[in-house]
Amino acid sequence: MAEQNNLSAVLYKKGDLRLVDSPIKEPGPGEVQIAVQQVGICGSDVKYWKEGAIGHFVVTKPLLLGHEISGVISRVGEGVTHLKIGDRVAVDPHITCRVCEFCKAGRYNMCPKVYFLATPPDDGALARYFVHAADFTFKLPDNVSFEEGACVEPLSVGLHGCRRAGITLGHKVLVTGAGPIGLCAMLSAKALGASAVCMTDIDASRLEFAKKCGATHTLLVGRDDSEEGVATRVSDILGAMPDRTVECSGAQFAVNLAVHATKPGGQVVIIGHGPTSVSFPVVQTVAKEIEIKGSFRYVNTWPTVIEMLSCGKIDVKPLVTHRYRLEQTLEAFEMAKSGQGVKVMINCGQ
Amino acid sequence: MAEQNNLSAVLYKKGDLRLVDSPIKEPGPGEVQIAVQQVGICGSDVKYWKEGAIGHFVVTKPLLLGHEISGVISRVGEGVTHLKIGDRVAVDPHITCRVCEFCKAGRYNMCPKVYFLATPPDDGALARYFVHAADFTFKLPDNVSFEEGACVEPLSVGLHGCRRAGITLGHKVLVTGAGPIGLCAMLSAKALGASAVCMTDIDASRLEFAKKCGATHTLLVGRDDSEEGVATRVSDILGAMPDRTVECSGAQFAVNLAVHATKPGGQVVIIGHGPTSVSFPVVQTVAKEIEIKGSFRYVNTWPTVIEMLSCGKIDVKPLVTHRYRLEQTLEAFEMAKSGQGVKVMINCGQ
Amino acid sequence: MAEQNNLSAVLYKKGDLRLVDSPIKEPGPGEVQIAVQQVGICGSDVKYWKEGAIGHFVVTKPLLLGHEISGVISRVGEGVTHLKIGDRVAVDPHITCRVCEFCKAGRYNMCPKVYFLATPPDDGALARYFVHAADFTFKLPDNVSFEEGACVEPLSVGLHGCRRAGITLGHKVLVTGAGPIGLCAMLSAKALGASAVCMTDIDASRLEFAKKCGATHTLLVGRDDSEEGVATRVSDILGAMPDRTVECSGAQFAVNLAVHATKPGGQVVIIGHGPTSVSFPVVQTVAKEIEIKGSFRYVNTWPTVIEMLSCGKIDVKPLVTHRYRLEQTLEAFEMAKSGQGVKVMINCGQ
Amino acid sequence: MAEQNNLSAVLYKKGDLRLVDSPIKEPGPGEVQIAVQQVGICGSDVKYWKEGAIGHFVVTKPLLLGHEISGVISRVGEGVTHLKIGDRVAVDPHITCRVCEFCKAGRYNMCPKVYFLATPPDDGALARYFVHAADFTFKLPDNVSFEEGACVEPLSVGLHGCRRAGITLGHKVLVTGAGPIGLCAMLSAKALGASAVCMTDIDASRLEFAKKCGATHTLLVGRDDSEEGVATRVSDILGAMPDRTVECSGAQFAVNLAVHATKPGGQVVIIGHGPTSVSFPVVQTVAKEIEIKGSFRYVNTWPTVIEMLSCGKIDVKPLVTHRYRLEQTLEAFEMAKSGQGVKVMINCGQ
Repeated sequence: MAEQNNLSAVLYKKGDLRLVDSPIKEPGPGEVQIAVQQVGICGSDVKYWKEGAIGHFVVTKPLLLGHEISGVISRVGEGVTHLKIGDRVAVDPHITCRVCEFCKAGRYNMCPKVYFLATPPDDGALARYFVHAADFTFKLPDNVSFEEGACVEPLSVGLHGCRRAGITLGHKVLVTGAGPIGLCAMLSAKALGASAVCMTDIDASRLEFAKKCGATHTLLVGRDDSEEGVATRVSDILGAMPDRTVECSGAQFAVNLAVHATKPGGQVVIIGHGPTSVSFPVVQTVAKEIEIKGSFRYVNTWPTVIEMLSCGKIDVKPLVTHRYRLEQTLEAFEMAKSGQGVKVMINCGQ
Repeated sequence: MAEQNNLSAVLYKKGDLRLVDSPIKEPGPGEVQIAVQQVGICGSDVKYWKEGAIGHFVVTKPLLLGHEISGVISRVGEGVTHLKIGDRVAVDPHITCRVCEFCKAGRYNMCPKVYFLATPPDDGALARYFVHAADFTFKLPDNVSFEEGACVEPLSVGLHGCRRAGITLGHKVLVTGAGPIGLCAMLSAKALGASAVCMTDIDASRLEFAKKCGATHTLLVGRDDSEEGVATRVSDILGAMPDRTVECSGAQFAVNLAVHATKPGGQVVIIGHGPTSVSFPVVQTVAKEIEIKGSFRYVNTWPTVIEMLSCGKIDVKPLVTHRYRLEQTLEAFEMAKSGQGVKVMINCGQ
Repeated sequence: MAEQNNLSAVLYKKGDLRLVDSPIKEPGPGEVQIAVQQVGICGSDVKYWKEGAIGHFVVTKPLLLGHEISGVISRVGEGVTHLKIGDRVAVDPHITCRVCEFCKAGRYNMCPKVYFLATPPDDGALARYFVHAADFTFKLPDNVSFEEGACVEPLSVGLHGCRRAGITLGHKVLVTGAGPIGLCAMLSAKALGASAVCMTDIDASRLEFAKKCGATHTLLVGRDDSEEGVATRVSDILGAMPDRTVECSGAQFAVNLAVHATKPGGQVVIIGHGPTSVSFPVVQTVAKEIEIKGSFRYVNTWPTVIEMLSCGKIDVKPLVTHRYRLEQTLEAFEMAKSGQGVKVMINCGQ
Repeated sequence: MAEQNNLSAVLYKKGDLRLVDSPIKEPGPGEVQIAVQQVGICGSDVKYWKEGAIGHFVVTKPLLLGHEISGVISRVGEGVTHLKIGDRVAVDPHITCRVCEFCKAGRYNMCPKVYFLATPPDDGALARYFVHAADFTFKLPDNVSFEEGACVEPLSVGLHGCRRAGITLGHKVLVTGAGPIGLCAMLSAKALGASAVCMTDIDASRLEFAKKCGATHTLLVGRDDSEEGVATRVSDILGAMPDRTVECSGAQFAVNLAVHATKPGGQVVIIGHGPTSVSFPVVQTVAKEIEIKGSFRYVNTWPTVIEMLSCGKIDVKPLVTHRYRLEQTLEAFEMAKSGQGVKVMINCGQ
């Protein structure tokens, strides 16, 4: 019977990604079973596959990949009242302890006991079926597609960063790095009211794509450019120093550019992951009272992003450049790795 | 006649500090003339004297030093209503433009047109008399001494840093660097409700002094210590990771210690000045969502600090370790340079 | 010579509004002379004309009306550098003391020494020329018309209220009262990211107009409706209780509706002026932790609103329903009084 | 055997409070069983006893009273790791759903599915033993007594109100109403850095007691006083209008006094419960941009209050005026009802 099939994309070890059939779990109390529909491939999925680790998260046992998820509720556990079989949903990949001081204070992304999809040793959801906490599963309105539903995750990364930056009406914003997260930050900044968003990158084609997605300004950074020089050009382009900068590249250059470019009293949010340590202009940071804030995953973003998509405040559809079926997962990962696409989407439906 | 005398401590160039008689200025509209009483020597005064510059602030013409000031109103300019001759006052060294976007938004410390006492090319007030903007001159209650009045300036540096860190009731705080600014940050943190303040330094005698002034815990940092190791010891001493860290040393080690030591979701404020750039653990900053904030001078602190001193919430008197008369200015500067004292105070009264 | 003419709309006393020629003032230091272009009529202008007073602001001597102003710089006073003759500008009607604690803290709308255009005894600007503080005069980009420039004032009222309410991305908002200020609040709420704005009024034609201007939902309130009943209907219409409510009607009913309708933990901002005191459901306010905030005029809104208009985030043009020339001022006031129009605009150019 | 006894103070119906033996419950997963030590009597306990209801909370079945609790862990449920048998603890009376949007956002006091001790139909803990959620049970340091531990609850009410008011260093604060909650608000305000706290009441003996507990100023309100008149006297006494007001009386007079007395731009927090609706000066609220905020119970206060008590920032001991044993519960309630004492404490140990 079709329903018995649970094709799953399991990373056995670095470089060894296989499609296997896995048991279908039953939802416990407070859980739901989800028939997965669309799964976006994240840079972290590719990195676990190619490198076997990200920082201290190391793949030491088989790991089910995938954490950008939409689906349909297929079974409902005890005590779940806000979801029913057949509901279309998007999934926040956190399952938190709900009782620690961070969970109690509204910062569940800092929960030390979190289970986070597709982060070793916690399995993801690139499969036909998986079971998730109902309170981290959110109903999609009819006018939000499954592909958009899977994009709530990367949009959440962008929105959380922009929220931490306090981006609001009339702000001019610099986004460094025009990959998928940079694009999601740009879309979020605009939805929050930014009047202009300038994106920088070292790849001209990414900037061209960013323009199509809504970046109001772009600036190509060359190998010989200085951080101060680019900062001045950003200011010239925007007509003023940016109020906020969202760093999405992970490059030391961009962290320095951010501090130099941002207006006195402004804020720099760092989402990008790169080297463990980088140097930064601390005297400038003090003299201009810059705030540099780390931004990690997201918290309480699903309802807002879904609302944004539903009411049309943001259009994420242009970000999906490639589409595959679950059976084509390896092909999809090769494409994601190639960097040719922006968001590669895998259809897990049957 | 005594009043004609305006002995003034003028730095002619690097190393060349002289006591000379200067003309006594009359206050214009919105200004007051102040008969100076006590002036504290700041590290920046000493640095201009010994090095002739701090960063891009260079002594290129004779500079009157001194910006930690208390005094008595001796003349009142046109339109000044909140001060009268004989009022005892403390002085915020800013004179801002009052019309730029920063002044309008309550961040006058970012005013690009500011005149700031004793910062080249702007003269200070280590003299018998000087003229200042009335709106940056604050009346002292009878129970706050002139020495305390002069200490409002360094306390303001500490308070502004602690305010930017959002220190509040029940916080555990790490202060790196136990010089005068570190001590003022510690006193401010406690007044804001911190339940424990741990101070670190590389000098045991400074930490001993800090304990006497109210630090609840101290930790001597050795040359061979690692940032992570000290971070763990701070946590052990406080019984928890500090909620907030205020960096007052200017050392790269301390910036790194700050990020490692501070609790996830916490904040690090940097007051200390050191090298132009330092490296910092950016991945930790992101993963723990640390906020690193520069803190520059102060804004709207005089009324609060004066209130604190008057109601007894903080006791700054132990910080004043050495006292001189204006005529002994060079001797006072030698003492300040030696590092033997904490706050060296010069009596400018006659 | 044309330039000598300074036709001015002066209210001599209640009901006695005359067009007279007034002397043209020269700008002093920090001031600019403005050749007025467009002036919007505000409800307060009409009220001074018909009733001679608003609260404790009483017309006791001839008062030049008009405070929604755009124009062209015709002369520049000493020390003004950011504006030059010929610049197109919009005017924030405040002239504040710039030195009190409120001005220093970024809340100049609370300045006790403020001069505010067209508020007795302070003259307005419904004339050919007037002189204003340069720091409260803001350059308009070429793509913002003079009519839009005059609308920055009512939009500022709406934006300030929405800012005080903390409206941001994904919020559902209730705006009570669909007059010009309610419409400006609705436009601001949407620009700040609100996904839905429901407007209530007792006049169906106003709601119809609101829909055309962008309100996503409207609800007609009848004489027999209860506050709780309407609150429930608002919630049904929006699909959830509104996160924020902006009260723009001045009616006791609306204040009560606001508290009943708003989501627990939400905020109610009151802009509307009505009776001195009204009753409100205090137990509900406590049990739901509602925040009720007064919103008075605005602070630091011109740059943001101008940016919004220029980048197209809001379209205020539909609000201007009637146009007159300065010579037709009485006719324009009769129209404004009739309530037939929304924003009545007077062209003061020659 | 002594341990079998579970004497419990059960309110059968209005006026019918009895001591009965109840079964001792076993803790389930995530729960602890607590051997109760001290229970403070709250005004709400007395009100349920004498009136059978508070607002829409009506006693319709036997209700175990008591929600100001300290005790010793007597059994530990599955999965509880931060507590062990013998730990001395204080109890936050909430048991929340942990999964709704309010719980997720750090505002668990708004959780619509909350179980709250001693609020119909939810039982309290005035007994020998009871079972509670481990995540709402907090370890007491050795230097905090059981009586102080029971006082964490009323202190939490005060602290939450003061936090919502944003009380910080240098604030002058008005507290209206000098009952137990007013006293706890005063103690919290001082710990948060308030330089002066003026308390008002209509009972001179309460104000005398408040002075002893630490109020810096008091003001007796008479029957013929006007709100504006008392507001002026508060300002005279404090030397300035209070920055913040915390309303703890439930009287319409006090709500009005609060708005009139508070400084422009200031905040009024309402904790007190009185009539369903009261009138308030809405025009003043708008013109002064006052924020009026309801404050309901508390959220995340236990760690902070315990820290405050342990480090000596606040001294709550003087508030405990009467002590009884569990067997004397009726006598204790008679005393609490009489209003002679401040905090009446019941020892539930054996």
